[in-house]
Amino acid sequence: MTSSDYLHSTFLLASSASIPNVRPNPLVGAIVVSETGSIIGSGYHQQYGGPHAEVFAIQEALTVQDDLSKCTLYVSLEPCSHTGKTPPCTELILKHKIPRVVIGSMDPNPLVSGASYLAANGVIVEECFLPELETLNEVFFLNQKLKRPKYILKSAITLNGKIADRNGESKWLSNSQSRNFVHQVLRKNVSAILTTAKTVIKDNATLNCRVEGNDPVELNLVVIDKNLDSLKPKNKQLKIFYKRTNSKIYLVTALASEAFEKYDVPENVIIVSIPMPNGVCDLNILNSYLLQNKICEVLIEAGGTLNAAFLEFNCVDELYLFICPSILADNKALNVFNSAIAQNMSGSKKLQLISTQSFDSDVLLRYRFLH
Amino acid sequence: MTSSDYLHSTFLLASSASIPNVRPNPLVGAIVVSETGSIIGSGYHQQYGGPHAEVFAIQEALTVQDDLSKCTLYVSLEPCSHTGKTPPCTELILKHKIPRVVIGSMDPNPLVSGASYLAANGVIVEECFLPELETLNEVFFLNQKLKRPKYILKSAITLNGKIADRNGESKWLSNSQSRNFVHQVLRKNVSAILTTAKTVIKDNATLNCRVEGNDPVELNLVVIDKNLDSLKPKNKQLKIFYKRTNSKIYLVTALASEAFEKYDVPENVIIVSIPMPNGVCDLNILNSYLLQNKICEVLIEAGGTLNAAFLEFNCVDELYLFICPSILADNKALNVFNSAIAQNMSGSKKLQLISTQSFDSDVLLRYRFLH
Repeated sequence: MTSSDYLHSTFLLASSASIPNVRPNPLVGAIVVSETGSIIGSGYHQQYGGPHAEVFAIQEALTVQDDLSKCTLYVSLEPCSHTGKTPPCTELILKHKIPRVVIGSMDPNPLVSGASYLAANGVIVEECFLPELETLNEVFFLNQKLKRPKYILKSAITLNGKIADRNGESKWLSNSQSRNFVHQVLRKNVSAILTTAKTVIKDNATLNCRVEGNDPVELNLVVIDKNLDSLKPKNKQLKIFYKRTNSKIYLVTALASEAFEKYDVPENVIIVSIPMPNGVCDLNILNSYLLQNKICEVLIEAGGTLNAAFLEFNCVDELYLFICPSILADNKALNVFNSAIAQNMSGSKKLQLISTQSFDSDVLLRYRFLH
Repeated sequence: MTSSDYLHSTFLLASSASIPNVRPNPLVGAIVVSETGSIIGSGYHQQYGGPHAEVFAIQEALTVQDDLSKCTLYVSLEPCSHTGKTPPCTELILKHKIPRVVIGSMDPNPLVSGASYLAANGVIVEECFLPELETLNEVFFLNQKLKRPKYILKSAITLNGKIADRNGESKWLSNSQSRNFVHQVLRKNVSAILTTAKTVIKDNATLNCRVEGNDPVELNLVVIDKNLDSLKPKNKQLKIFYKRTNSKIYLVTALASEAFEKYDVPENVIIVSIPMPNGVCDLNILNSYLLQNKICEVLIEAGGTLNAAFLEFNCVDELYLFICPSILADNKALNVFNSAIAQNMSGSKKLQLISTQSFDSDVLLRYRFLH
């Protein structure tokens, strides 16, 4: 077996973890290979705050043989050299005199720098980057690099870019297959849905994750709600206020805390006060707040104004667009991106098509933004 | 061989004709099969005004044997029983005592009614409809049924339905592969391109058919030009005024003929005066005029106002939409359908997706309208 083969095994191990259990950490797998080429230990990071993949792999290897001084450790992500929730893995590697470490992808966090630390301490460090490992931890890498959640924007539009008629009526543009895909695929792995109070009040959707044959799964919700309209007495029965046991609603308001002390705040609803100079909210502050609260990947399901604001601030990474087989020619029908800012053709946002998929007469186009 | 097999042969024969040579007639193929099952005559309609398929097939059969009284005639479309440009085929069939005729599709023109005429005269008439024959003469059938050309609307849009920025700049939304497809496939078989003087003057496109490795092919052009702006002296050099030898420009104006007598009209430019009560033009009059001038299939390549007007009057049959990987969030960017008329979601136009095709990051969605 080649290094790539062993590293692909660490990819499969890493992939077996539950994403929500691990976040905001990356998915990591590791194996210890003996001098004869046998895999004598393997493990993966299972739980945020719990042991790293290397710990499991080395512990298992030690049950096979005491001496690891002729073994190789394959690890899907650069080992850490700092003390976070757990002691640094580099010390464990050095302690057991593992002479060679092969790494499948690098950790962008400068605090990690395990590779150079190991090399400085006499370990042979090889880098053998696998594309599947880049993809696996795409959200983690993006969080590290951009200091914000990964944002996926989803919308269902007429083939001419409208999300609703001039009265705001949008039911049902997309077909049931498309709507099922949203639950089964898009909502399944994200940390939260982001929307606006306007959308929440107008559509009164539950915004959880429902897959046929399974119980509904709760989903964190981030609601941009400048004046805390969703807390008004008439909105008490909104479906988003279902009984939550392991999720929260973050109501983002422009009001200062003194102003909302009077509100009757339901359980599991957290009010976040963020200035809204541009009408949406200061995205730098929001981004930091969300990341601190382990909200690493966010699905935007909102109206055209919020969509355009996130777009303008380059806070959209992927777009899932359901093109539905209808036309609203009315100029006052609502646009999927709704901005009053003048924009020349040369200033248009550019994207890369990732895939196309048909659900009967709906077509799902998936794009990546070229920031 | 079954009747379907013989009729499929007539489909292949019919398909070998040049569409522009035959229009406004349908494509038709015919074969004469002897009592032993051999094909002893075959033919297809080659040229508008020339002999019908049945004539060629029967003539060839007569070179093999004088007596056709035990043969079967297979014909892709119901034979005619009236005198048009040529004598009725039913008389030829009766004259040669052909006892059995198998028909692959019916002619919607009530003047044709060859099947009942033959049956009334003792011929065994069988109908065996093949889907490929319906598709083959789709334009002809539509012309007969709706008394207008078939209209195909083509547009290249941002993924949110814009065709240009607020200044009208549209170059280049779609990529070169998409633009080549327009020439190689869409413009190739249509009788004319329909557009507006505004588009012609702004884009100054040639609007002919250019396929790499071939000489450019002329294309009829229908230009909605209310005030004959394209004939103004400053527009003399517009590329559409290339030297035409076998095509025409139809300038559709709201002006009465006295008003445009003063204009210096280039060769092969025909001015058509049609009332424009709705700002575009009376589509019933335009449709009759175009059909009379053998313009059976029209490609609409225009701006949002004309697109919406044709849409409103149910004068679009197919839509070819190139979804380009960019976003113009600006509300003042130009819409692919631009209408001031209020429209509810329930009144939106409904379509059926026919196919999807990718050209790099452009996606071509092809729809049929459900009128």
